[in-house]
Amino acid sequence: MIPILGIDPGLAHAGWGLITHDGMRSRYLAHGVIKTDSKASIADRLLCLYDELSKVIEEYKPGTAGIETLYFAKNVSSAMPVAEARGVLILCMAKHNLTVIDYTPLQIKQAVVGNGRAEKNQVQSMVALILKLKEIPRPDHAADALAAALCHAHTGGLT
Amino acid sequence: MIPILGIDPGLAHAGWGLITHDGMRSRYLAHGVIKTDSKASIADRLLCLYDELSKVIEEYKPGTAGIETLYFAKNVSSAMPVAEARGVLILCMAKHNLTVIDYTPLQIKQAVVGNGRAEKNQVQSMVALILKLKEIPRPDHAADALAAALCHAHTGGLT
Repeated sequence: MIPILGIDPGLAHAGWGLITHDGMRSRYLAHGVIKTDSKASIADRLLCLYDELSKVIEEYKPGTAGIETLYFAKNVSSAMPVAEARGVLILCMAKHNLTVIDYTPLQIKQAVVGNGRAEKNQVQSMVALILKLKEIPRPDHAADALAAALCHAHTGGLT
Repeated sequence: MIPILGIDPGLAHAGWGLITHDGMRSRYLAHGVIKTDSKASIADRLLCLYDELSKVIEEYKPGTAGIETLYFAKNVSSAMPVAEARGVLILCMAKHNLTVIDYTPLQIKQAVVGNGRAEKNQVQSMVALILKLKEIPRPDHAADALAAALCHAHTGGLT
């Protein structure tokens, strides 16, 4: 089965998670976080995100991906670097011929927990349960990325 | 002389402008706009921006670049796609080994007109005057990109 990639976008930390889905159930494959150096320039941090995500894609060869959209009601200035990072992550996936679909936090919670208003820890517990993991994947960004992958598997026309 | 690139970031239209600067004066080299299809996916639009800017860089071989920062006081949702595009444009320049410096709209106006509160048309008229162009470069995005290049030439430690 061709793996499904999930991404929790960020500039300082970008989470990634990989699963497979056979139409019936989803299986865990791998997860991780790309960290960038806060002392580096924005250009160098974007380069790091691109290059590290490229390595993940080249290793696991996913075919499609789900990525969380950004939701910032208040602080626009803090949203900008995250959006710049998100653009680079989407570009990286597109350059590797992945189909990339956006999911809102509400859609992801709805798909994983069945409740768009679920708390973050409920989502993470369900990720572990669905994927039969003994512990909640750490850090949070990686668990959120697996949730995005599960959402894509369940709602992205893949079932 | 190694050309200087200026970028006015955008998803629908990204302006670019190229000048040279000999320490005394700036000379016009080229300008243009990359347009992306509003009906295409965000991933395809980001790919288009990356690939078209790559062609410009490979043709003119600039060594450094100035790019305008985004200023959105009110509408966060409309700012997100532009920030995603900006991230991809910065990545593209970094991938081609350009040094990329951010400039705020205020810094660009200050550098080009000598007044950080200058109107848009004043900036564009000064761009034409400084670069000895008979007409204001069109469209606006390209004129704004040349203004970013001039700002970088005058304030980016290049003089």
